[in-house]
Amino acid sequence: MAVNAVPSAVPSAVPSAVPSAAPSAVPSTVPSAAPSAAVNALREALGAQVVALPDEFVDRRVEDWSGLPSAVPLALIRPHDTREVAVALEICARYAQPVVTQGGLTGLVGGANLRGDEVALSLDRMNQIVEIDAVSGTMTVQAGTPLQVVQEAASAAGFYFPLDLGARGSCSIGGNLATNAGGNRVIKYGMMRDQVLGIEAVLASGAIVGGLNKMIKDNSGYDLRNLLIGSEGTLAVITRAVLRLRPKPTATATAWCGLPSFDAVTTLLRRAQAGLAPGVSAFEVMWAGYHDTVLANLNTLRAPLASPHPFYVLLESVGTDPVRHGGAFEEFLGAMLEEGVVTDAALASNEAHAQAFWAIRDAPGEYQRFIPNHAAYDVSFSIAQVGDAASRCEAQLHARWPEATIMIYGHLGDGNIHIVVDVPGLPKHDHDAIDQVIYDVTRDFRGSISAEHGIGIKKKHFLHLTRSEADVASMRAIKQALDPARILNPGKIF
Amino acid sequence: MAVNAVPSAVPSAVPSAVPSAAPSAVPSTVPSAAPSAAVNALREALGAQVVALPDEFVDRRVEDWSGLPSAVPLALIRPHDTREVAVALEICARYAQPVVTQGGLTGLVGGANLRGDEVALSLDRMNQIVEIDAVSGTMTVQAGTPLQVVQEAASAAGFYFPLDLGARGSCSIGGNLATNAGGNRVIKYGMMRDQVLGIEAVLASGAIVGGLNKMIKDNSGYDLRNLLIGSEGTLAVITRAVLRLRPKPTATATAWCGLPSFDAVTTLLRRAQAGLAPGVSAFEVMWAGYHDTVLANLNTLRAPLASPHPFYVLLESVGTDPVRHGGAFEEFLGAMLEEGVVTDAALASNEAHAQAFWAIRDAPGEYQRFIPNHAAYDVSFSIAQVGDAASRCEAQLHARWPEATIMIYGHLGDGNIHIVVDVPGLPKHDHDAIDQVIYDVTRDFRGSISAEHGIGIKKKHFLHLTRSEADVASMRAIKQALDPARILNPGKIF
Repeated sequence: MAVNAVPSAVPSAVPSAVPSAAPSAVPSTVPSAAPSAAVNALREALGAQVVALPDEFVDRRVEDWSGLPSAVPLALIRPHDTREVAVALEICARYAQPVVTQGGLTGLVGGANLRGDEVALSLDRMNQIVEIDAVSGTMTVQAGTPLQVVQEAASAAGFYFPLDLGARGSCSIGGNLATNAGGNRVIKYGMMRDQVLGIEAVLASGAIVGGLNKMIKDNSGYDLRNLLIGSEGTLAVITRAVLRLRPKPTATATAWCGLPSFDAVTTLLRRAQAGLAPGVSAFEVMWAGYHDTVLANLNTLRAPLASPHPFYVLLESVGTDPVRHGGAFEEFLGAMLEEGVVTDAALASNEAHAQAFWAIRDAPGEYQRFIPNHAAYDVSFSIAQVGDAASRCEAQLHARWPEATIMIYGHLGDGNIHIVVDVPGLPKHDHDAIDQVIYDVTRDFRGSISAEHGIGIKKKHFLHLTRSEADVASMRAIKQALDPARILNPGKIF
Repeated sequence: MAVNAVPSAVPSAVPSAVPSAAPSAVPSTVPSAAPSAAVNALREALGAQVVALPDEFVDRRVEDWSGLPSAVPLALIRPHDTREVAVALEICARYAQPVVTQGGLTGLVGGANLRGDEVALSLDRMNQIVEIDAVSGTMTVQAGTPLQVVQEAASAAGFYFPLDLGARGSCSIGGNLATNAGGNRVIKYGMMRDQVLGIEAVLASGAIVGGLNKMIKDNSGYDLRNLLIGSEGTLAVITRAVLRLRPKPTATATAWCGLPSFDAVTTLLRRAQAGLAPGVSAFEVMWAGYHDTVLANLNTLRAPLASPHPFYVLLESVGTDPVRHGGAFEEFLGAMLEEGVVTDAALASNEAHAQAFWAIRDAPGEYQRFIPNHAAYDVSFSIAQVGDAASRCEAQLHARWPEATIMIYGHLGDGNIHIVVDVPGLPKHDHDAIDQVIYDVTRDFRGSISAEHGIGIKKKHFLHLTRSEADVASMRAIKQALDPARILNPGKIF
């Protein structure tokens, strides 16, 4: 995915862009010098090595990549294992002490940021791979393990862990689970919830639920696992997980296609899904506005096709049959060109070619350099309506801001697009009017205001556009049932 | 799937086997002649055409295929649409009137059976396909639509709906969702929860949650959809759903393999998943005891291989490339024979051959004829532990009942096996001792007591073997939060 708006390398650059008056921001507070009774109890139970006071972690980053402000926590808890997490939460529940769980802090919606009255619970010390079971095809990990460590360990064991996103080096499996992370391979492998068999989690009470199940099928009672996944730290602290490993792909074919219309784009998607035997592993669509803007601004990029087209698609298929894979892909692409679904195409004949195609799609990592004040959106629709919804957004934005740069691109196979808007002269903290346009269209098309980034604090005021009053009331009832003292990540989602 | 113990054709034959004293059975009661205030209010609001009294539905079956007893409902509600469901539940909530939702009544754990104080809510009139969206690849249906109708409509529209189980002609999509149905194609396509994008459901209060979303990605708040799926009618009544359609396979390859050991079986699974480019669509393992017993008892079956083997696997791969599919499959099988992973194999050269292989795997539909008093189990383990768990079950059963017939078979790619035990002279209502052996081993191997059939009333007393106290307490808290008057399917699951 598309960590839009976030520099690929130096997240510490983001806080400089923190708006001075973000809508839902609580002013940063400096905790008073004397630790509270809750913090004292935590420190007594777990020791100073696990529970640090603010002057003991002054240099540590405590906010995510959203650019939203964060206060400093009253204490920073860094447990070594599930038992210490349970002890910490049991004490916090007793003192009604709010807790914000933190993983790699790469979120984009302020989900791990603080108001000032919370302790932070970092899982960074729980970063061990517990076991790889090559027969069952599973990897058991602690929640603080970085995604990239998991990917590399899977590869070393002869498997493939398909979840992948720009923040892979920093984000943790626990954060991926708490936010149900998406990324580039969802079309073939699903989101984070599809990569996991068992999760172990600690409730606000300190009770441990779930477990390290390796069963693919388990219809014994309610699906707590999927309820906790994507709940952004508001229902439980995920401590360990059993991940599902996949066969390692041994063949990749990649093409860059120019297409005449959005109808042709959806036709290519359907035909590729039906016609490419191992399936489609990436189907990244880019509107001409995106293509032209990033090529004009980044001189390391080169246009793969000689002539301009209204739409471009990066099509990729991975498989496990090196002998037949390339021929079948080429044949399919030839048929699409012959039928006019695709107007022109470039087939990657080696990995460097494929990387050059991906570099165009990965250009959002460079936004900070040429459009530092842009607004970025992560919305989803039915696949059939993506084209109309995007057109309506574009038309309404251009009507109001004729000088705006609008870039639309995304994972069409998932109905997920990103819309980036840069209005010259409009500062970053003044995006409310753009929000309104994008989210009103999203509501009208019954789409989602958050396809993969979550709600956090950034989108909570728009949640009602995607979820009904009855839905939100149900979520609140579940929150009340599992966290009656409301200590877990208060003020997030709703 | 393995509708173990249930005749494939005539479900009405089952009730004759109803045990006279099932452990959790409440004796059938005949409702008193005078309708209750709740039934009167329902009839007044919805009319006699929607709310029928017992003497108006005397010939109608009201119990599932479990063989467990069921009372007659106080009234039978047959709404036409979501609004009528909401009206009915709102009235039931007001009168604290328990409600049992019924779909096709093909469940195997008594999940839709009655104690006697409930009204039944049948979705059988809500059986319409609302829309097929060929661009988005979705089908919107009412929950009462039979699975087979959905499969056929998908096929007619050029798509494939992969969920498949023996009860396809009778079971409904709503029941498939309420129980998170599994079946034969889980290894490639997942369970019912993986076949659905949006669900609309009515809570006990009459409030409507969810909706007809076609988004593949939606990270806006808690995952109510997956919480309701598999909750066996205890949290809400699912009224409509948006199903996900898949590309129609155009090539199938099927082989029957004889293998020397369980290690060889897991090796074949891993190698097939890594080596067959379109993946594995079925991997059905059968222990020799199963193979030999069904072949000895059903003279329509013929052994595909000349010599006996300790294990047999029905391996199937479906794909969309008719040109390359067969060759790649044959090549893979050749390599497995050469390496000794597979000792002997028969490749289906036409559909009749493939059907003959499947007939051996589908023999459980005939159990009623030759082992009418058998006990059947549906358990799951990590793939690595299936062999050891099965061996331990077999050894313990044989030690206690040397004369027992034991048949083990199942979906190894999902870690899901079925164990069927026939002890000559042991009647159907006297299976508690067999239950204990199977479920103790399941607990010891940290498996699931219900891979795909659900808990209902049949397995509720064993739930603690698979789910912890904290898990069950969380489920109860969620139940209390969403159905505070406990009117929905009371007494089921826990």
